[in-house]
Amino acid sequence: MYRTHTCGELRISDIDKLVTLAGWVQRSRKMGGMTFVDLRDRYGITQLVFNEEVNAALCEQANHLGREYVIQIKGKVNERFSKNANIPTGDIEIIVSELNVLNTSLTPPFTIEDNTDGGDDIRMKYRYLDLRRNAVRSNLELRHKMTIEVRKYLDEQGFLEVETPVLIGSTPEGARDFVVPSRMNPGQFYALPQSPQTLKQLLMVSGFDRYFQIAKCFRDEDLRADRQPEFTQIDCEMSFVEQEDIINTFEGMAKHLFKAIRNIELTEPFLRMPWNDAMKYYGSDKPDLRFGMKFVELMDVLKGHGFSVFDDAVYIAGICAEGAAHYTRKQLDSLTEFIKKPQIGAKGLVYARVEADGNVKSSVDKFYTQEILQKLKEAFNAKPGDLILILSGNDAMKTRKQLCELRLEMGNQLGLRDKNKFACLWVIDFPLFEWSEEEGRLMAMHHPFTSPKPEDIPLLDTDPAAVRANAYDMVINGVEVGGGSIRIHEPKLQAKMFEILGFTPEKAQAQFGFLMNAFKYGAPPHGGLAYGLDRWVSLFAGLDSIRDCIAFPKNNSGRDVMLDAPAELDQSQLDELNLIVDVKE
Amino acid sequence: MYRTHTCGELRISDIDKLVTLAGWVQRSRKMGGMTFVDLRDRYGITQLVFNEEVNAALCEQANHLGREYVIQIKGKVNERFSKNANIPTGDIEIIVSELNVLNTSLTPPFTIEDNTDGGDDIRMKYRYLDLRRNAVRSNLELRHKMTIEVRKYLDEQGFLEVETPVLIGSTPEGARDFVVPSRMNPGQFYALPQSPQTLKQLLMVSGFDRYFQIAKCFRDEDLRADRQPEFTQIDCEMSFVEQEDIINTFEGMAKHLFKAIRNIELTEPFLRMPWNDAMKYYGSDKPDLRFGMKFVELMDVLKGHGFSVFDDAVYIAGICAEGAAHYTRKQLDSLTEFIKKPQIGAKGLVYARVEADGNVKSSVDKFYTQEILQKLKEAFNAKPGDLILILSGNDAMKTRKQLCELRLEMGNQLGLRDKNKFACLWVIDFPLFEWSEEEGRLMAMHHPFTSPKPEDIPLLDTDPAAVRANAYDMVINGVEVGGGSIRIHEPKLQAKMFEILGFTPEKAQAQFGFLMNAFKYGAPPHGGLAYGLDRWVSLFAGLDSIRDCIAFPKNNSGRDVMLDAPAELDQSQLDELNLIVDVKE
Repeated sequence: MYRTHTCGELRISDIDKLVTLAGWVQRSRKMGGMTFVDLRDRYGITQLVFNEEVNAALCEQANHLGREYVIQIKGKVNERFSKNANIPTGDIEIIVSELNVLNTSLTPPFTIEDNTDGGDDIRMKYRYLDLRRNAVRSNLELRHKMTIEVRKYLDEQGFLEVETPVLIGSTPEGARDFVVPSRMNPGQFYALPQSPQTLKQLLMVSGFDRYFQIAKCFRDEDLRADRQPEFTQIDCEMSFVEQEDIINTFEGMAKHLFKAIRNIELTEPFLRMPWNDAMKYYGSDKPDLRFGMKFVELMDVLKGHGFSVFDDAVYIAGICAEGAAHYTRKQLDSLTEFIKKPQIGAKGLVYARVEADGNVKSSVDKFYTQEILQKLKEAFNAKPGDLILILSGNDAMKTRKQLCELRLEMGNQLGLRDKNKFACLWVIDFPLFEWSEEEGRLMAMHHPFTSPKPEDIPLLDTDPAAVRANAYDMVINGVEVGGGSIRIHEPKLQAKMFEILGFTPEKAQAQFGFLMNAFKYGAPPHGGLAYGLDRWVSLFAGLDSIRDCIAFPKNNSGRDVMLDAPAELDQSQLDELNLIVDVKE
Repeated sequence: MYRTHTCGELRISDIDKLVTLAGWVQRSRKMGGMTFVDLRDRYGITQLVFNEEVNAALCEQANHLGREYVIQIKGKVNERFSKNANIPTGDIEIIVSELNVLNTSLTPPFTIEDNTDGGDDIRMKYRYLDLRRNAVRSNLELRHKMTIEVRKYLDEQGFLEVETPVLIGSTPEGARDFVVPSRMNPGQFYALPQSPQTLKQLLMVSGFDRYFQIAKCFRDEDLRADRQPEFTQIDCEMSFVEQEDIINTFEGMAKHLFKAIRNIELTEPFLRMPWNDAMKYYGSDKPDLRFGMKFVELMDVLKGHGFSVFDDAVYIAGICAEGAAHYTRKQLDSLTEFIKKPQIGAKGLVYARVEADGNVKSSVDKFYTQEILQKLKEAFNAKPGDLILILSGNDAMKTRKQLCELRLEMGNQLGLRDKNKFACLWVIDFPLFEWSEEEGRLMAMHHPFTSPKPEDIPLLDTDPAAVRANAYDMVINGVEVGGGSIRIHEPKLQAKMFEILGFTPEKAQAQFGFLMNAFKYGAPPHGGLAYGLDRWVSLFAGLDSIRDCIAFPKNNSGRDVMLDAPAELDQSQLDELNLIVDVKE
């Protein structure tokens, strides 16, 4: 061992001990005849002291240490004259008697500090240096701790972790698969799993009863801040359960994690909100409930008064931003610009301030009497000083989503989205299907194995779009951290689902035959849930992107810029795989 | 919840309780007016009783239950008249008052029993049914328990589990990579990791200090019983350590697993054997030390007596099988056939029996006097009743490997390879390089990042083939369960290694540039080890193949016959990936 102690370990009680430490030179400074070096490792920083008067040669050697040199020192623990209360080792220093340079270092391309001077691109390229920074490494320490706690909870609940294969078959219903050519089966390809969904259902058929896996999943999708081509799910499935059992089990896990990781005791049951309400009141299936600004529909109040925008609208609704009446014209204009951005796509914004005297002053005053505006105020229960913001449109769902963006933006602007406050809820009663304009047919909102609510099964024949699913998402602070469903376990109901989804029996057999066949041999009632590990860690770490809790993430083009992957193959590799690359210009 | 208890839970203390159970019909039998059904789940079997006299309709319903039907029952716990001491629930039965069939089942293609009538192929195709068998499921329960214990041990030792990416770059030095075409980077491919080797070394450069990961690894190799295209490693790396530290840490882990999983307390340090001795005395770098039969070299004793086979040989050695002198001519002939098999390739076998009177009787008596044969006996310290088996050849290494096979075969035949006995050792001091006939150059025996022993570094210039590595394998019962090395951390030494391995600086840079660059920024001394999880589980479960401890294994052609993967892709998928499949006939 190159050390007797780590750099985070020594305390005042260790004074006079002879110790050996090893680590990286964080910084060094010369003061008078003394040279001070901060030695860093994963565990902390310890101050080293070299005294010119005591040992000039050693001190000279220390003066030549560069940043990030790897050194080993021997010395004696000494009480510091001026203590540093900011670090746990701040009471002591080491009077060095021997110095060995284990490795030198080029000057790093950015500073290894919590607030680094390195931009995103350079830090990704030198990710191994970026990972030296406390701010980044601590996210991965948190991730480690979370998986330990997840496994502890699930093991105690009788779940078995089972590894399912990574090289499986392609399942075109869903996102795009990554595929792997098989050399031993020429012309054929494996696919990487988008999730272990079908395999965990097979494990239920096998009687595994309670399964989980912290599993890598792969989706070849275009990327954005909270998407990576490979990501990690806490994937779970249970047999002989109903929705209530799954919700209880995984709400228990969430509470366990809050307590173990953040020391937050959540004693109340999580709120449950039907999907319809989530859309109606927040315009989102993952509402951020850290703050209010619930939607209020205003068709009754504002329609039919000569303001043609509203008179022609099929949907009018607004939010009330408490105490925001002070917003200037400029601020309001910029909100209008915000909601007109192409990603949001609203046409315009109507606002109304409640003034100190209770009067309402709006941007459409000329169309509305004070009497109507008072009704508007009442609809929101608004007080003097509040600001009402109103959108309208020809498509209720689209307008709701625009209003949702406006609500979240106001939450940001008013500081209502505190990263240390957590609002947890279950969104339940999702629709079983959603209409796809692109495909011109109903698609499974979750996946084709999701069970309809028993009481809605008759609607499958008459009005499938109205059928609700036994499906549920857990949402925290507007992030969908997990979701799942009760699955179909009856072969007949599964066949009907495929039929509604437009599969011919032949196509269903070709794609999901293995699962449908398995179900003929005694499938138990079952259901499950998958949590997004990356999202959970980001949430607990207060991160804006899942990238920062992944050791070696990929950029938006799916590239690992550090490894320079993907890359071209040798011709011999392509030949062995019976492949010709044919890139169209 | 569909049940109040599992099928393995009820005891005599539960008598008269009203319970609800759910599970699979294991078997049912009619006796007089009673129908008995064994209800099975993961946790056990509970006997259900239906009484025709009490409820004829219910009993009639029970008579129609088929094997593997999924049912739910309600009933009262009753003390059994004739108890079954073989199962934990054998004292009780359930007098059923309600029966719900949750799902029917076709007759399974093989029996769901510990000793099934199903052959390998059918069991692989219906793996979800095979997994219902206790014998198979218990392997996966053991695997779960092992990973829990591994993580517990490593977490307590301060290791952080870090997920490294699965989509990385291709590293041609080593086995063949599986590759993944990138849609977003046309004409380019990711590779799946053969191991996280370089990534864990980067984590050491990052100062992670102690890393582990239970990681899926991928090798596109031709398969056999202990190889799968995807397999699982317990991958570990430590900084600021020497070989001794790693050996201690991971010997500690092995001992923890033996205790936690098999309740075996291993108090002695594991034996350590230099690679040279392992080859000399056992003809293998993974000797099975559950039994003796150490090789004895016989050049001095047997050469130069007119037996041309031995006189021409450059290597003669034998083993002594204690008490095997009773072997018949037929048994000896079959041993000769065994070692002449093409996979082994020996030319012939010489034997010598030590008779009751101490005289030695050999198959080459006419060339050797009894005096010489007595010297042979003494060389082995052989006793009356022992059997000496001798091989010779023109290539010492090849003959040793043949003799190794013979030794293992004799161990099997004499019942010396007890699966409940464990012989653990470290093989150390591996050669750094081995000569590749195929490539006509030195190759890294482990991988190009393995550190030479410091005292052998001068030999790199003069006699590289003689350089020993700071590398070690843990071997249990002739199985290499893990191995690793101290890595090179000095950029100059790494460059020299690449030079000896025949890399131009440009090629080294192209393939391992990311690692060599990282090493310029302060790499700490580091080393590590990877355990094969599948092999560990097989060992503890007493399995002959790693397949039986993998939930969904692949066959020898790399196919998952249950999923029918790999398979052909749609043309549209190939087009998106800019690929043309060109299978040569």
